[in-house]
Amino acid sequence: MALFSSLTPVFLALLCVVIAAIIRSFSRRKEPSKPDSKATREVRPWVDEDLQDNTEISSRDNEDDDWADGSEADLPHVPYSPARYTVEEMLERSQHFYTMMNQRRSVRFISPEPVPRAVVENVIRAAGTAPSGAHTEPWTFVVVSDSETKRKIREIVEEEEEINYKQRMGDKWVRDLQRLRTNWVKEYLDVAPYLILVFKQTYGILSSGKKKTHYYNEISVSISCGLLLAALQNAGLVTVTTTPLNCGPQLRLLLNRPANEKLLMLLPVGFAATDATVPDLTRKSLEDITVFV
Amino acid sequence: MALFSSLTPVFLALLCVVIAAIIRSFSRRKEPSKPDSKATREVRPWVDEDLQDNTEISSRDNEDDDWADGSEADLPHVPYSPARYTVEEMLERSQHFYTMMNQRRSVRFISPEPVPRAVVENVIRAAGTAPSGAHTEPWTFVVVSDSETKRKIREIVEEEEEINYKQRMGDKWVRDLQRLRTNWVKEYLDVAPYLILVFKQTYGILSSGKKKTHYYNEISVSISCGLLLAALQNAGLVTVTTTPLNCGPQLRLLLNRPANEKLLMLLPVGFAATDATVPDLTRKSLEDITVFV
Repeated sequence: MALFSSLTPVFLALLCVVIAAIIRSFSRRKEPSKPDSKATREVRPWVDEDLQDNTEISSRDNEDDDWADGSEADLPHVPYSPARYTVEEMLERSQHFYTMMNQRRSVRFISPEPVPRAVVENVIRAAGTAPSGAHTEPWTFVVVSDSETKRKIREIVEEEEEINYKQRMGDKWVRDLQRLRTNWVKEYLDVAPYLILVFKQTYGILSSGKKKTHYYNEISVSISCGLLLAALQNAGLVTVTTTPLNCGPQLRLLLNRPANEKLLMLLPVGFAATDATVPDLTRKSLEDITVFV
Repeated sequence: MALFSSLTPVFLALLCVVIAAIIRSFSRRKEPSKPDSKATREVRPWVDEDLQDNTEISSRDNEDDDWADGSEADLPHVPYSPARYTVEEMLERSQHFYTMMNQRRSVRFISPEPVPRAVVENVIRAAGTAPSGAHTEPWTFVVVSDSETKRKIREIVEEEEEINYKQRMGDKWVRDLQRLRTNWVKEYLDVAPYLILVFKQTYGILSSGKKKTHYYNEISVSISCGLLLAALQNAGLVTVTTTPLNCGPQLRLLLNRPANEKLLMLLPVGFAATDATVPDLTRKSLEDITVFV
């Protein structure tokens, strides 16, 4: 009895540990049931507003599959008769368009030569014809030609890139410093006559003041960027597709964009430099990317 | 002393509770530091494989901003001299391209008339010229012309749409059944000569058998779809952009696509029906979507 009595504290201490383990495993098990609600993609504490805003990654379960069903359902319908070509014309036009697009390359060596602003305007007009979820047109194109702003953008992007490269490379760092250097120095950001910063509007503000999530905003704006690339290529201009997402909040502040806008792409635009080079890569063939059923 | 001795179990029990509370709050506080690792976007239990695969939403923190830095860094560079036009030509070309793109509309009334397969092939070739993160070209275009497969696709999509609409509408349901009906019946899925199902490859398989995340795969494939839309419009064909993500796993199985591929878009393709109509909507102006700095 004396032995049992003296063991009681030990027994209780063990009980303690068991209960703690049970509670801990319970609270762990609960977490996965609400996976998206608290998730944030950007963890860098640049701007509080950007971190607090989760609307862009809310569940997709209740979204319209058919993008136009939303706001368009109440609009009157009008007849639509698009241009129509003969089979020969279609073959010729589609072949020509493919050939033109296939000549496009991502170019990092951009000439400082000026480009008529009216051409850039037409290119952005073309990008603005993209379809979007519920016709929200959730894009803002910030066209920067001001030298001082371009310099600041380059500073922000290169600083972030340098951190990226140094952290990632670790031990390999010293081995090939020279080659790496060319990876985080983005001279084209200073040199190109235009930088187009494409922002996605992750939500809109309703008249009630409430936020309205723009579903599919990233997909919509990316499609719009596809049209932008096609329009640039058609006009004889070059760019390189970059997505400096970590710099997004800083660049948003620099350019005075509101909190519902997030940077998706940064495209330097101009003529190719006369000594421009590109990596000698090939594209997958039609057979590699297509399945016919 | 007797009193103190009899209180010891009570004291230990209290200690127990305090320790449990501390451990619990600790394990809670730990969760937000790894927000994305366990998050899944799709919660429908269609296919286990689709649910187990989180690679597409892994953190973006260590990604290249500059898409080509990855696999292209080791390739030799070659000179690049793209087509170059006079200012007048650039203005004319960019204006013409905008006008053509601005005539594009999402069309739900598609003619059953056949379309030459060679034209569809050229359109997909054009889409395949899109840039992609580290030149992974993470897209698969499944082109369906087989009637039976189109019928099955329609069944899957309409069933899912009907659930969506009924669940979403709740009390408003009976009020306007007729109008709603047109929203989940997708006749064009049977009628259009081609359905193009665009899959994004969320990861690749390395020679070691390990998964290699395809960063920016959704953005890359969406850009590619932008080129696809431009190419269709250029050829005089119509489509409507739809994203039946909830049907993705079922359609993936139907079409025998591997687990690393996820449906991003479903585009019915053909000529516009002669009595086609579109909602009478307008687009934002250049001033609404652009900021010049």
